[in-house]
Amino acid sequence: MSEKIYVGVDLGGTNIKVGICDEQGKLLHTYEGPTGAEDGPEAVLDRIAQYVKKIVSDSTYQWEQVAGVGAGIAGFIDLANGVVLFAPNLKWKDVAVKSELESRLGLPVALDNDANVAALGEAWSGAGAGLKHIVAFTLGTGVGGGIIIDGRIYQGFRGMAGELGHIKVVPDLEAIQCGCGQLGCVETVSSATGIVRMAKDAVGRGEATSLSLNETISAKDVFDAAKDGDEVAIRIVKRAAYYLGKAMAAVAVVLNPQRFVIGGGVSKAGDILFDEIRKVYVQNVPEVFAQGVDIVPATLGNDAGVVGAAGLNLK
Amino acid sequence: MSEKIYVGVDLGGTNIKVGICDEQGKLLHTYEGPTGAEDGPEAVLDRIAQYVKKIVSDSTYQWEQVAGVGAGIAGFIDLANGVVLFAPNLKWKDVAVKSELESRLGLPVALDNDANVAALGEAWSGAGAGLKHIVAFTLGTGVGGGIIIDGRIYQGFRGMAGELGHIKVVPDLEAIQCGCGQLGCVETVSSATGIVRMAKDAVGRGEATSLSLNETISAKDVFDAAKDGDEVAIRIVKRAAYYLGKAMAAVAVVLNPQRFVIGGGVSKAGDILFDEIRKVYVQNVPEVFAQGVDIVPATLGNDAGVVGAAGLNLK
Repeated sequence: MSEKIYVGVDLGGTNIKVGICDEQGKLLHTYEGPTGAEDGPEAVLDRIAQYVKKIVSDSTYQWEQVAGVGAGIAGFIDLANGVVLFAPNLKWKDVAVKSELESRLGLPVALDNDANVAALGEAWSGAGAGLKHIVAFTLGTGVGGGIIIDGRIYQGFRGMAGELGHIKVVPDLEAIQCGCGQLGCVETVSSATGIVRMAKDAVGRGEATSLSLNETISAKDVFDAAKDGDEVAIRIVKRAAYYLGKAMAAVAVVLNPQRFVIGGGVSKAGDILFDEIRKVYVQNVPEVFAQGVDIVPATLGNDAGVVGAAGLNLK
Repeated sequence: MSEKIYVGVDLGGTNIKVGICDEQGKLLHTYEGPTGAEDGPEAVLDRIAQYVKKIVSDSTYQWEQVAGVGAGIAGFIDLANGVVLFAPNLKWKDVAVKSELESRLGLPVALDNDANVAALGEAWSGAGAGLKHIVAFTLGTGVGGGIIIDGRIYQGFRGMAGELGHIKVVPDLEAIQCGCGQLGCVETVSSATGIVRMAKDAVGRGEATSLSLNETISAKDVFDAAKDGDEVAIRIVKRAAYYLGKAMAAVAVVLNPQRFVIGGGVSKAGDILFDEIRKVYVQNVPEVFAQGVDIVPATLGNDAGVVGAAGLNLK
């Protein structure tokens, strides 16, 4: 029998990206087009099916070689039934994505949320390839997480495992409210949003910094300023790294992963961020949880979503 | 073929307890005798083999029905090789328990640490029976933990997963040092040792309490005083429950278990402890992690170790 291929769909608010992976998780082809969420779920589902058919027919592979189609979606998903319960950036509520795509494609379809899917991508053929126990953090607008055990996403009782951004690490009296309603989640500090908030606060207070509100401050601006020696920016980067390192220490004693993979826009900050995270992590775990354990940047970049989505149909 | 039975060994510093379980994890017979750790590992291993042979021959079961023997041991274990690396209460270092017992018994032998084994016992036929995602805390001299997924102990990269007592929850400036070398682990506050320490500190400071140093204070004394309305004791119980609830909230967003099972001597305190833990837990997790999730006392008591040890050979 000929080689199987796996098709992944990264369904974003603006664009739909589809990709074909081989059995080793190597991304062979991608195709990207507009989501057109304003046309409603039916039109978006039609478009996904069209993109999936197109990328396969444009390739050297046959439709019969497709083992399955996976889709990663930012939102809450009823995994048992393959229903997107709520996806704010698509304005979707209770959309039966699995059954709708299966009927359009005649193939098995699997769903998961974007952070889990990105983690699976990195575990399959990215920074975690070949390892059995991987925990991934995605530092973007929020802090996402994914737990990959033996190449599978660990879901827990209600599919909510790996919500690592909601580990509460900031002491109560220093904490601010998170989008989840709790106080002091690591997401409030270590996400791009958290970093920008701290920077704006510092500028607003008139602290001595090269950062300014004239331009829209981004997390990258803060990291760039920190690299240039701006002490306010350095303090903010250290704070983001500190609480992320503390959250990782908590995850370590619970799960004892071999590798932490950190992706998302914020992770592009490089050594200035990673050196600090590693230092805080090692200081906050018993030694056995640091031996042989590493903390590395994700390697698939924006492709992690489409690769991981493709991997949802791995047996 | 006749029914299989599972033999468990709870190897303590003072006594060895062996038990026979049926395929549903029901404990049918137990036999207990002295460990005699002072005679050295060889003698203890001989004694374990002797007790295992005795309990089977005294029963209505045949030796051929024994599916395997499991042993729970307080200490660090090299799971891959079945070697006890270090067991302080036995004064053991690098004892090849698995191979030594297998050669004495001619049966497969599996090992794990006492907290994992107790968790497995509760998940098999105790407070977690029938559920797929269980997290157990054992509140004794320390705070042990065990993660049971689909009826198996989750071990992680180096077999150190589930070291839940070392989740750091006490704010740094309030923290004391834990046996693991870190500061502020939940074990420093929510174990029997932590509760007794807080009580002795309060008495030593001359606080207005019915507790006294004339007798040796136990955790039970503190709970009894709290039930009688002693405000110092109530404050200590609330503190122990508060930090345990915070640790459980961290575990929840990582693993999303369906049930938390709390065992060990401290768990016998009953509602005064559990009501407070539940309150703190619910306050500290996003709502989805509280829906359908419960926090219950262990039901197997001191038998959890022998039942869970027997369960190590479940396929």
